[in-house]
Amino acid sequence: MALIVQKYGGTSVGDVDRIKNVARRALATQRAGNHVIVVVSAMSGETNRLLKLAQAASARPDEREQDVVAATGEQVTIGLTALAIQGLGGKARSFTGPQVGILTDSAFSKARIRSIDKERLQQALGRGEIAVVAGFQGEDEEGNITTLGRGGSDTTAVAVAAAIGADACEIYTDVDGVYTTDPNVVPAARKLHKISYEEMLELAGAGAKVLQIRSVEFAMKYNVPLWVKSSFTDDPGTLCCPEDPSMEQLVVSGIACDRNEAKVEIRGVTDKPGVAARIFKPLADANIVVDLIIQNVGHGGKADVSFTVGKTDLPKALEIVRRLADDLGTEKVETDDQIAKVSIVGVGMRNHAGVASKAFEVLAAAGINIAMISTSEIKVSMVIAAKFMELAVRELHTAFGLDAPEGA
Amino acid sequence: MALIVQKYGGTSVGDVDRIKNVARRALATQRAGNHVIVVVSAMSGETNRLLKLAQAASARPDEREQDVVAATGEQVTIGLTALAIQGLGGKARSFTGPQVGILTDSAFSKARIRSIDKERLQQALGRGEIAVVAGFQGEDEEGNITTLGRGGSDTTAVAVAAAIGADACEIYTDVDGVYTTDPNVVPAARKLHKISYEEMLELAGAGAKVLQIRSVEFAMKYNVPLWVKSSFTDDPGTLCCPEDPSMEQLVVSGIACDRNEAKVEIRGVTDKPGVAARIFKPLADANIVVDLIIQNVGHGGKADVSFTVGKTDLPKALEIVRRLADDLGTEKVETDDQIAKVSIVGVGMRNHAGVASKAFEVLAAAGINIAMISTSEIKVSMVIAAKFMELAVRELHTAFGLDAPEGA
Repeated sequence: MALIVQKYGGTSVGDVDRIKNVARRALATQRAGNHVIVVVSAMSGETNRLLKLAQAASARPDEREQDVVAATGEQVTIGLTALAIQGLGGKARSFTGPQVGILTDSAFSKARIRSIDKERLQQALGRGEIAVVAGFQGEDEEGNITTLGRGGSDTTAVAVAAAIGADACEIYTDVDGVYTTDPNVVPAARKLHKISYEEMLELAGAGAKVLQIRSVEFAMKYNVPLWVKSSFTDDPGTLCCPEDPSMEQLVVSGIACDRNEAKVEIRGVTDKPGVAARIFKPLADANIVVDLIIQNVGHGGKADVSFTVGKTDLPKALEIVRRLADDLGTEKVETDDQIAKVSIVGVGMRNHAGVASKAFEVLAAAGINIAMISTSEIKVSMVIAAKFMELAVRELHTAFGLDAPEGA
Repeated sequence: MALIVQKYGGTSVGDVDRIKNVARRALATQRAGNHVIVVVSAMSGETNRLLKLAQAASARPDEREQDVVAATGEQVTIGLTALAIQGLGGKARSFTGPQVGILTDSAFSKARIRSIDKERLQQALGRGEIAVVAGFQGEDEEGNITTLGRGGSDTTAVAVAAAIGADACEIYTDVDGVYTTDPNVVPAARKLHKISYEEMLELAGAGAKVLQIRSVEFAMKYNVPLWVKSSFTDDPGTLCCPEDPSMEQLVVSGIACDRNEAKVEIRGVTDKPGVAARIFKPLADANIVVDLIIQNVGHGGKADVSFTVGKTDLPKALEIVRRLADDLGTEKVETDDQIAKVSIVGVGMRNHAGVASKAFEVLAAAGINIAMISTSEIKVSMVIAAKFMELAVRELHTAFGLDAPEGA
């Protein structure tokens, strides 16, 4: 008898009929001889509706209170899902994050899970019930309600699977797996049967939306086999698991693209030790996530520093950088929000020199200029003009042999 | 420094603008030098919306899961109310029922409060915060979410006031106090400045909607001064308090009317000991609340038993009565759902014989037939045809001297 954790996102529980579908799938899994825990998100649109209400009540909503409001979205879904399972003749019991002992830190709106008390879940499974757990939420040591931030339900599912020693964690979404790239950009994109945690992490970090980074980190840390599946088809989906020798040995597994970043360029800063810290410490303190950073060692004691941030953080970042200008001896600050980041990811890269240089050649041949480059062991990211994004992804997809064979 | 509990119902928190009004009123009360605890209901319409979702998920919703869904309504309001107070520059903190230690029994959807842990509330007040508490909800000993049933937020407010020793509990609603009768029926109805707990209980039990019976019972038991006020005006409202000699010594304080009951008449049952128990035990077991009961001692070993129940319970009650027919030797069962109950209430009645007979005369003079009569120490209830309800209330209101003086 296996123990399966199934997580259903907002579109999979978007209305009562879809919730009944979820109930049917969970019951079928149980009747096939498994213990089943279901983790659900808020019905699609609900979290946004609740956050808008909070915004209307106070222009700068306190995050503790905002979490109290937002956490109700998932609470509604667990009740409805348990009811739908019961309506089909099954046994089910719902649990809020606090009820199932999901203890987090007190970073409201972006809390991190510290521990999960598996006892109540095990009792429910022991009674033959399907346990329905609210994603996205927990409580801190003082009993305050916390939320894990956007996409937090994936993290809840994997954390529950890790805590209870589940045999698999299935993430149901509106796509049927992980693709070599966004099928909307490249129709020839291919679905992967398997992908390593490391590759999935790099793809997620590079803009692929299919899984939340923290959930993949959790799965990797606790070795939880993670399936990405569609709640609307019976396709087996993509398995995200430890890298193994039998895995498809592609040099490149996927290409991610991301149009949500903007570039800040600080020209002519005084080139002395500690200058980077003086720029990036205040940005970190303001909770601005900086992605790519490039520093050109300059001439005449001056250097240029460029970095990318999320587009929504650009005004705040610019304000901080301008405030530092005198201190840094800055000559000029420029920004560009018409950029895209294209990333090539693959564990095979480790043993293949030349992936980066081949990528540069492909873009050069297509007449695309590269503004920034960043590499890791299994990833090459390039920042280009936004208008060239689709072209770049298509060219790279073909060049690295990822296009699906005819008729596939 | 006084400690005031303020309770705001669904229409008072019906949208974000109204919630801001609630925030202003709570802050004004605090700035006048009081400690303030605010208890709120779900935004109007929200509880119905949630219960409909539960009904859509399962035709016969399990009450534990239904409570999980329904309790989110109040949770949204506490967060928004705390945010609105903060938005106006005040300090506030929200608490769900479980967070403030409202321990109930496990009768889902109609749970009763067992105890309240006042420590967290006192800590919040000690920090200068307005504590915003979710009405209608609590948790049982196993940590399951429970709800107190319709109108339960009044009960929460009074229970919190009693637990923490508040100086007053103010119930804000869409009317500005307790009237001698429903002003929609009798335009000459007068607002009462004071009313005793006992009278308020009888009025509430007789159909006046202004306060929930359980909340009045709680207030009486713990001697909590209870104000009924409007959240839309600055009218002082009506004070519900222990009977005292200085209280307006009216023979009759108010007249209540209720069109939500139906009558069941069981004719010709075998008249032997225990027959009433054989009828009313199965009704109680089915959670049907029986109001008036009349048994006519019969002739030839046969008796007639009549009783009233809520209209919505009529089909269930009828099913039970028909099932018992053979056992009781019933000759005939008749029902009537076109009835109204008119009740006269007043502590002055105790010392005035003849209130009941005067009421019968008034109705007789108006040509209204009385189908059932029931009396208590401070109340006379009469069941009449529904179509005569308004007429009966108006005639009684005038006859007992309750009409407001001209120009009042």
